[in-house]
Amino acid sequence: MPELRQNIATKEWVILATERARRPEEFVQPQRPLTEDRPELEESCPFCPGNEEPELEVMRIPERGPWQLRVVHNKYPALQIEGERMRTFEGVHRQITGVGYHEVLVESPLHNTCPALESAIEVSLMLEAFKIRGREIAQDPRIEQIIYFKNHGDRAGTSLVHPHTQLIGLPIVPYSIRARTEEARRYFDDTGRCVLCHMLSDELQEYQRVVAKSKYFVAFIPYAALSPFHIWVLPRRHESSFLNASAHELADLGNLMRQVLRKLYVGLRDPDYNYVIRSAPLHDLGTEYLHWYVTIVPRVTRSAGFELGSGMFINVAWPEMSAAFLREVDEAA
Amino acid sequence: MPELRQNIATKEWVILATERARRPEEFVQPQRPLTEDRPELEESCPFCPGNEEPELEVMRIPERGPWQLRVVHNKYPALQIEGERMRTFEGVHRQITGVGYHEVLVESPLHNTCPALESAIEVSLMLEAFKIRGREIAQDPRIEQIIYFKNHGDRAGTSLVHPHTQLIGLPIVPYSIRARTEEARRYFDDTGRCVLCHMLSDELQEYQRVVAKSKYFVAFIPYAALSPFHIWVLPRRHESSFLNASAHELADLGNLMRQVLRKLYVGLRDPDYNYVIRSAPLHDLGTEYLHWYVTIVPRVTRSAGFELGSGMFINVAWPEMSAAFLREVDEAA
Repeated sequence: MPELRQNIATKEWVILATERARRPEEFVQPQRPLTEDRPELEESCPFCPGNEEPELEVMRIPERGPWQLRVVHNKYPALQIEGERMRTFEGVHRQITGVGYHEVLVESPLHNTCPALESAIEVSLMLEAFKIRGREIAQDPRIEQIIYFKNHGDRAGTSLVHPHTQLIGLPIVPYSIRARTEEARRYFDDTGRCVLCHMLSDELQEYQRVVAKSKYFVAFIPYAALSPFHIWVLPRRHESSFLNASAHELADLGNLMRQVLRKLYVGLRDPDYNYVIRSAPLHDLGTEYLHWYVTIVPRVTRSAGFELGSGMFINVAWPEMSAAFLREVDEAA
Repeated sequence: MPELRQNIATKEWVILATERARRPEEFVQPQRPLTEDRPELEESCPFCPGNEEPELEVMRIPERGPWQLRVVHNKYPALQIEGERMRTFEGVHRQITGVGYHEVLVESPLHNTCPALESAIEVSLMLEAFKIRGREIAQDPRIEQIIYFKNHGDRAGTSLVHPHTQLIGLPIVPYSIRARTEEARRYFDDTGRCVLCHMLSDELQEYQRVVAKSKYFVAFIPYAALSPFHIWVLPRRHESSFLNASAHELADLGNLMRQVLRKLYVGLRDPDYNYVIRSAPLHDLGTEYLHWYVTIVPRVTRSAGFELGSGMFINVAWPEMSAAFLREVDEAA
């Protein structure tokens, strides 16, 4: 019988379908070129060495010599850095000037790589660079929320294939983040606990949805995962902001994320995916009840009208089976 | 300069991007077969005449002779009709048995049609059939919310091309609908008005975002539209439930929806789209402050990691320009 499950932190419901359920192996992506099959250098790629636009550069590592990682301003930014944040609320029209940051982190000089193919140190370096940029942007009083995200592959919405990740610094707190914050606060008020700490201890005890774990982090498919192989990577230490993660933690996370993404790459044949670092609003840290984490969402199914109309999802992969499948994947392969 | 706009009813923010903005003409879909280019009858199509599975049939119009429209049980339903609705809330696990309805409305015996190509009467008949089914399902005390939706085309998540629409009757009220209901109630408490009535009167006065209107309905691109050509079709009469729409209203709506969908078909060359009828929860009608409507969302851009992480969207089409473009499209063409 199908089952509806609710995520206790986000309050979102999902339908776990039985009639249309698929086995984990059925999500292995069809034959098509893998990331590693691309050329190492692509002449027309704006992120490949030789095509750098120095006026867009924000930072590079190392500072001299050939770069390993660069952060650049998005050439077609969604928001504009210069300008005043001005609210105009007139009747039914609510508007704020589009000030903010839109930066691109070029993860590697190589055109044909991705976190699953990079070394753990490279993935950690990316996280460190995000922390540096995030801390800098957090100094700007106009900015209220930073979204860190990766689009890997066409179905995940990427337009350039060279490995990169992005951040957008927003002059507002998005409604869905406000709603999650309120739910977390209510849970804390009712129980005296952080809801994600509670969820994490439960997942570790049950273990059937855990994909991998490390000293400081645990990767699992949530009990009410919205889509197949939807993974949360939670820090074991309660902390609301990614920007307060320690260097040790980020080194450890880089290793674990690489491991998990490699399990997807090997086990599902380089599926398209998004990942997002979910961190507290900058001026509303919710220190006691918010808990930062990373969400990884493979794009192996499509959402349609039902999802649009309900905000719910129909998941055709049982979380417990998907996690067992991924645990077995030998990421060293 | 980019602009952030907030939808006063849903409280969702959208970024209207300037650097990456596109003119309406740039959304015209590339050359590919149109719906009307398909064969009228497809032997392998389970919805084509001759392939009916009588055991799945729920209703047909007319009842005798060749059918014009059929409602059938989804062969691979997301939810199961038989069974008790049972909640099991244990610690961090919240579960409800997956009871509910999942029906498919086959709009036409013709394989190569869609609302834009059908007659207004056919579209109205579809709405009437939904109302009949919705009223019947609403009698089942286990059901709390009905989602009516259409997936037109691959990017809108359809798996069968034969023109059809679906409904899912849920044993819960989805979180996002709860949230919208609360926002609407708060607006009513603060102002004494239905927020959508307010929005509608404003759109009619400004007129620049109106796409088309009829005696009982107005179709417009909301001020804070989340994506290009995102259209709301609102009844002028305040009413929270689609199931209370009159026969006159549904006849009028069928005509207007056909007109709007035809503008998209002609103007953007048969884009993929979803539409959804948004109606009040069955046991929480919010008679004073909820207002039913139809959302039409062409799938001409992709959502990616930013949308996943923020719940916000980046719209690359200015609502005022898109509406002006659609107003000009001659749907009789």
